[in-house]
Amino acid sequence: MKYSEILFDVADHIATITLNRPDRMNAFTGTMMREVIDAFDQTDADDDVRAVIVTGAGRAFCAGADLGAGGSTFAKGGSDVQTDIGVPRDGGGLTSLRIYNSKKPVIGAINGASVGVGVTMTLPMDIRLASEHAKFGFVFGRRGIVPEACSSWFLPRVVGISQAVEWCYSGRVFPAQEALDGGLVRSLHAADDLIPAARVIAADIAENSAPVSVALTRQLMWRMLGADHPMEAHKADSRGILERGRSADAKEGVESFLEKRAANYTNRVSDELPDLFPEWVDPEFS
Amino acid sequence: MKYSEILFDVADHIATITLNRPDRMNAFTGTMMREVIDAFDQTDADDDVRAVIVTGAGRAFCAGADLGAGGSTFAKGGSDVQTDIGVPRDGGGLTSLRIYNSKKPVIGAINGASVGVGVTMTLPMDIRLASEHAKFGFVFGRRGIVPEACSSWFLPRVVGISQAVEWCYSGRVFPAQEALDGGLVRSLHAADDLIPAARVIAADIAENSAPVSVALTRQLMWRMLGADHPMEAHKADSRGILERGRSADAKEGVESFLEKRAANYTNRVSDELPDLFPEWVDPEFS
Amino acid sequence: MKYSEILFDVADHIATITLNRPDRMNAFTGTMMREVIDAFDQTDADDDVRAVIVTGAGRAFCAGADLGAGGSTFAKGGSDVQTDIGVPRDGGGLTSLRIYNSKKPVIGAINGASVGVGVTMTLPMDIRLASEHAKFGFVFGRRGIVPEACSSWFLPRVVGISQAVEWCYSGRVFPAQEALDGGLVRSLHAADDLIPAARVIAADIAENSAPVSVALTRQLMWRMLGADHPMEAHKADSRGILERGRSADAKEGVESFLEKRAANYTNRVSDELPDLFPEWVDPEFS
Repeated sequence: MKYSEILFDVADHIATITLNRPDRMNAFTGTMMREVIDAFDQTDADDDVRAVIVTGAGRAFCAGADLGAGGSTFAKGGSDVQTDIGVPRDGGGLTSLRIYNSKKPVIGAINGASVGVGVTMTLPMDIRLASEHAKFGFVFGRRGIVPEACSSWFLPRVVGISQAVEWCYSGRVFPAQEALDGGLVRSLHAADDLIPAARVIAADIAENSAPVSVALTRQLMWRMLGADHPMEAHKADSRGILERGRSADAKEGVESFLEKRAANYTNRVSDELPDLFPEWVDPEFS
Repeated sequence: MKYSEILFDVADHIATITLNRPDRMNAFTGTMMREVIDAFDQTDADDDVRAVIVTGAGRAFCAGADLGAGGSTFAKGGSDVQTDIGVPRDGGGLTSLRIYNSKKPVIGAINGASVGVGVTMTLPMDIRLASEHAKFGFVFGRRGIVPEACSSWFLPRVVGISQAVEWCYSGRVFPAQEALDGGLVRSLHAADDLIPAARVIAADIAENSAPVSVALTRQLMWRMLGADHPMEAHKADSRGILERGRSADAKEGVESFLEKRAANYTNRVSDELPDLFPEWVDPEFS
Repeated sequence: MKYSEILFDVADHIATITLNRPDRMNAFTGTMMREVIDAFDQTDADDDVRAVIVTGAGRAFCAGADLGAGGSTFAKGGSDVQTDIGVPRDGGGLTSLRIYNSKKPVIGAINGASVGVGVTMTLPMDIRLASEHAKFGFVFGRRGIVPEACSSWFLPRVVGISQAVEWCYSGRVFPAQEALDGGLVRSLHAADDLIPAARVIAADIAENSAPVSVALTRQLMWRMLGADHPMEAHKADSRGILERGRSADAKEGVESFLEKRAANYTNRVSDELPDLFPEWVDPEFS
């Protein structure tokens, strides 16, 4: 797929996805949705990629849905993706679910306005950093619609239920410092330092941790966030310790540690990811 | 229903429920329970109400169960509401479940002592503000009983499991600052500023956000707090964006935003709330 | 069972379990696992024990799995405990699940390095205190394996999903202050003050709260952390208020409070713990 509304780049084992409609404050469209989803298919398939950074071109991160159609913007529902039951799938949700299933860690580098789907799409990312100049808004109530992109599942788990509902009921736009205080972002950075800070985190992962271990860790943590009992984790862990414990990476990981040298991991995410959840069935839209 | 143990008032689209047994520190009774539940039935049904504040008359918010019956206070269980299986339903729990299902945002304005059911009943409220003079206590262990009002479900989700169990194992009464530091309340206020601060939050919601959007947001956030997978949110979101996207409110919300004017939402919570969860069944007591 | 790798002591109603391989930084072994599990069987059965402290002998708390076998350390999986399906059960998970089911509050007094299973085994403890000199590390990715001991269930619930994945993806060792800032531990203490501080918390519980109430509180809070709807808590609460409301402890708890004197609770955890979850089935490993 040739991209028209995002940029895609890989360097030093780090992929960067840049939302790229700067003249429209990177407002979200169906095209942008399809391109972001495709880009995550690429990063999952490419063993050279060990972490993903998502950012925006120009002054904004993403100002939300493109309101170019005015009052009829949302009249046909959330996307062009239809379902058997006559309900179009919400485009933010398709994006969020794709990021939720990413095999590589995802770091949001929020460089400016992050409003509506522009903020909810960041919630399934693992880590969010922001520019001091960023602004945030869960503005859905002020547009007469509802929070989307699975944010009712993600947001209370990220910032707590009280902070989540306060931001969503009000719908007001708030500054970066409030996002930091409320736990929405991990740290604030001067504009020029944002991407470098994100790359430091990504490089630490890329250089030090076994990619298959990182992919399994991501799957374990996000799936177990919705599990009813720690036994579900215990079953997956036991498989994980068995499968990975006899892997080349485990031998290298322990030996390199004991020898106080850098590790050279050889197992590949693309074709050596063990299945720790043989009974897991991804829920269908129905 | 004529109220004898609460006050009920609506002004400026904000309902205020005041626990009103000041000579007994607003200690909780079966009558108070029935009146609070009835008051939430009123606020849900009245389209003029866009937010609810709960506070206490006099010095206390609610000092907990009325211990007037001494050592036999809890001997018959938690309320007069019997069940088929011979277990009376906990009165705090009936109150909490009613608040959990409120269609309007609920703000607790905790003006003084908030102990036992006096604090656990606030946990399903969306936002808690407190007076600097408030005191809190999860004192159940010191009375020989157990935490109630569904607090074992709500409290760890509000303040985290470690803080939740520490407060409950000890049962000691603690000051407002500790409640703030532990995430139980959002902010502290001088006594005279408490209700005004709660009204500012309520007014922001009432004036700026579409009431149907707010009601759906409340349902989405609280229900998804217990959901296993973000797909459950995606299904509800997709219905929400479709149903609300073609609503009068969505047209008005986007147009008023583009025209930089106040919005005039016309959709009603009482009879225009779409069902985003057609497969949802409220669990029974059994 | 005679212990060779832990110390076990009971004084003032507080049991102390001390990981005791100081020459190996208390590195975790199959023997240590069996002894810790046995010790929790003892503390559950002994009505004299009202709280449990877990700490380490010497400089470390627990440096993780014993890597004495080098690159083949994990080659046979996580423990010697086999299952019908050919997957050995993870030893950290067996430990975590035993602590999860403890009937007595568990306080981790983390006196030094707490790395790998040395930190994940503390996550089902109720409260974690640390020495200023403690260090922490979720190092699994740097050893080529995966987070274990059910940490994918516990860690995001304790510190939030974003902090959990950041620590686990990186695998770096971090200082006590970062553990405090990130919500992993409750408070930091000078080395000599750590155990005294843990004993103050334990003594407050032992002296003031009814042991059966505390055991039920622990069960309620941890089980409901995985429950889908507050109705599950309401059912258990209603049973709890009924069963405990007519107990000797409830009479004593209320009367001692009204008479402003210390309470003398007589109900026993060992044989008077009511079943608040008659439909609960502990999940099997399968």
